[in-house]
Amino acid sequence: MIDYNKTRILLDPNETPKDWVNILPDLPVPMTPLINPMDGKPAPPELAFAIFPKQCVLQEISQEPLIPIPKELREIFVRTYRPTPLHRAYGLEKELGIEGEDIKIFYKNESVSPTGSHKPNTALAQAYYSKKDGVNELITETGAGQWGSALSYGCNMFDIKCTVYMVRASFLQKPGRKILMRAFNAQVHASPSKLTDSGKSYYEKDPEHPGSLGIAISEAVEHSMRSDKARYSLGSVVNFVLLHQTVIGQEVKAQLKKINIEPDVLVGCMGGGSNLGGLMIPFARDKLHGISPDLEIVGVEPRACPSVNKGDYIWDYGDSAKKAPILKMFTLGHNFIPSPIHAGGLRYHGMAPIISILTRKKIMSSVMHHQTEVIESGLMFAKTEGILPAPEAAHAVKEAIDQALKAKENNEKKNIVFCLSGHGFFDLLAYKEFLVGNLVDYELPTEEIQKALAAPDMPNIDETNF
Amino acid sequence: MIDYNKTRILLDPNETPKDWVNILPDLPVPMTPLINPMDGKPAPPELAFAIFPKQCVLQEISQEPLIPIPKELREIFVRTYRPTPLHRAYGLEKELGIEGEDIKIFYKNESVSPTGSHKPNTALAQAYYSKKDGVNELITETGAGQWGSALSYGCNMFDIKCTVYMVRASFLQKPGRKILMRAFNAQVHASPSKLTDSGKSYYEKDPEHPGSLGIAISEAVEHSMRSDKARYSLGSVVNFVLLHQTVIGQEVKAQLKKINIEPDVLVGCMGGGSNLGGLMIPFARDKLHGISPDLEIVGVEPRACPSVNKGDYIWDYGDSAKKAPILKMFTLGHNFIPSPIHAGGLRYHGMAPIISILTRKKIMSSVMHHQTEVIESGLMFAKTEGILPAPEAAHAVKEAIDQALKAKENNEKKNIVFCLSGHGFFDLLAYKEFLVGNLVDYELPTEEIQKALAAPDMPNIDETNF
Repeated sequence: MIDYNKTRILLDPNETPKDWVNILPDLPVPMTPLINPMDGKPAPPELAFAIFPKQCVLQEISQEPLIPIPKELREIFVRTYRPTPLHRAYGLEKELGIEGEDIKIFYKNESVSPTGSHKPNTALAQAYYSKKDGVNELITETGAGQWGSALSYGCNMFDIKCTVYMVRASFLQKPGRKILMRAFNAQVHASPSKLTDSGKSYYEKDPEHPGSLGIAISEAVEHSMRSDKARYSLGSVVNFVLLHQTVIGQEVKAQLKKINIEPDVLVGCMGGGSNLGGLMIPFARDKLHGISPDLEIVGVEPRACPSVNKGDYIWDYGDSAKKAPILKMFTLGHNFIPSPIHAGGLRYHGMAPIISILTRKKIMSSVMHHQTEVIESGLMFAKTEGILPAPEAAHAVKEAIDQALKAKENNEKKNIVFCLSGHGFFDLLAYKEFLVGNLVDYELPTEEIQKALAAPDMPNIDETNF
Repeated sequence: MIDYNKTRILLDPNETPKDWVNILPDLPVPMTPLINPMDGKPAPPELAFAIFPKQCVLQEISQEPLIPIPKELREIFVRTYRPTPLHRAYGLEKELGIEGEDIKIFYKNESVSPTGSHKPNTALAQAYYSKKDGVNELITETGAGQWGSALSYGCNMFDIKCTVYMVRASFLQKPGRKILMRAFNAQVHASPSKLTDSGKSYYEKDPEHPGSLGIAISEAVEHSMRSDKARYSLGSVVNFVLLHQTVIGQEVKAQLKKINIEPDVLVGCMGGGSNLGGLMIPFARDKLHGISPDLEIVGVEPRACPSVNKGDYIWDYGDSAKKAPILKMFTLGHNFIPSPIHAGGLRYHGMAPIISILTRKKIMSSVMHHQTEVIESGLMFAKTEGILPAPEAAHAVKEAIDQALKAKENNEKKNIVFCLSGHGFFDLLAYKEFLVGNLVDYELPTEEIQKALAAPDMPNIDETNF
């Protein structure tokens, strides 16, 4: 007998979080600074202000435990899609043979946002602050297009210009995402383009060059440097992006409280770390304060790009072209080019410094899964819950299933909560390949990791200086 | 100053409607029967039982004002997407220069369902009844794929087989919809196929035949006749489909009541009539009872296929192949092939008998719009509200905008409510064509309508017999 009030837990619009949760003051070790790639020294705020929206730079280093969400921004969240639902996965539970109240699976449904993922949570914030500071253009790069769509949407909502450098291979393969960005008024350029020096060198050699995220980042950063009214925008990795995503975890907390559930495991996929960061930070802070010490937090990576599982915790460039700041993080090396898995959002060489630190300190852990088992799980989820997950989100589905089955085997009681970070309406090719049986698995060989990590092109960074 | 509680009006899961609203007992004239195409006489229930799920046939002719929604079905609605939100279109209002409280625009957001439209409301119901009656397969046709996706989803939820005949032109042009259907376990065949006699005659002449909705319906009906455990499923037009859609209007009523708003105009696009029917029936019943006599109800048709605006109110076949029952309705003639507008869901020659009767009796009215102005309005909606509407839904957006601007010009107070029947993530080509300036308008010439209506292939129907 299903209790209606416990199947899809909604919050009132006025229960949308009023603050973001900042984990920096509670970290077990101090946050490492962003390093200037030019001299290996901590980037002074003025340098960062020239790249990112000013308020975001201040949030990047803030020690305030709570940072108020501006009223006008919160208003747009409420008007459009927040709070998002938390679902009990009754259909999936039934399929797994764990019907009952001992093992429960919940998922936070971020796929209901206008562009279909959690990304607008930070896109709207960055666009809002830019508008307020008189910035009239945000520039970014995008791979599969999920982040580019979200920033296009965000900029359009605050009436500022948006320019997106989209990896040419995706530009040609995913016309839908491109049209969606244009519908939101963005300029979309195939990268490498002839519009920037970084792009031109590749473009002139080969106008059909398929591009890479590394080149696209360089083009976006270079473009943003041209005008003091333009800024570069990032959709993951840095502290302020994870901060903006904490609306997810705060809502989950409130929703679980309504049905008197204490979570045992939190699960999220991680590429740069933004959706998992958003889900877990409000809970991790509690854990750091000794509340719910047994809560497990599990990040899920693709076996093709396992930055935390197989990378080193070192200083590395945020981008392949060495224009963006250097961060201390788990990384596979900025020269690493991941295999072409469908979860484009998880093809990043590094990992958010916050997640890197929490992993090092054993506040959370991480696992890896193969593309075929991930897409198979995504399909099981679609069939039982009705929502087709994005390939990225399907990583979290796979791990939630594994956690449930393990608990069943061990006769454990367990409440599992995962973040369904986005829907897969623009990623149907992954499912098609699985259905016709030609989806491929990629496992990153150890020697390739060693090679990627052996890049000798890093300035000397003296940690005793900060 | 925006009141948070009035921007996106949500209902609790337990406020999901418990009954469907049946307008049949309140119609100003008796509902016309379904006619057997073989003999021109009212189809006896046994004949209809062989085609449609049994409970649906009983609902088609029921005189009960309220029909309870089965508990198990309501449970799935609640678990997955109902109640859907009602939004106040503050962004659109601002763009139109009608900020304030005199003219308000609201939209019911049916795009949040798992397949992105209102269609699962009836797909789940038909699958539920089929399962209960021991039917193990539902067969249908689909054009653009919205209905096919919804029925695939519905059948999968109740673990019965689903077979979809998809017009070959769409089958080739819209691989996304096809993969989505397959992800939900459906069999999808390009139509004309060699699997049915109706299809084979076309297929053998030309294996690349682009197909038509008419041929696809014939294939689906023929296929469903083969087994007494299979039934044909319809996504619009007939009374029981409109009945299942009344969850929309009932929720809107409850949502408007929460914010003390009386609607002045209800707007919906209409192809077969299911989303507008679902929105307006609970209100039209009040109007027929003398409550809110001034409420306007406006159906929006494409100029390329204006069944009500330009068709005749006559007996006509429900399909081009004359296998489906004959209905009394506004129609452009069953041989009419509409121009290839992007709003595939509005390319139907006829109109729901309920809507036909209410239009004849002046309980509601209808208007027509051109494809370019519709898509332009859809784009304005995306830019201001953040949701990209399906081309079908964009017809309602266009009319809501016109209603608002007219009210502004006349200094009238007006509360406008429209149904956003679906999102446009699978219809991006329409927006692309608009953005690059090669979207085409189609206006149906009068002589073509006369030709289509002049088809002499109808059995004699003696209305004095019933």
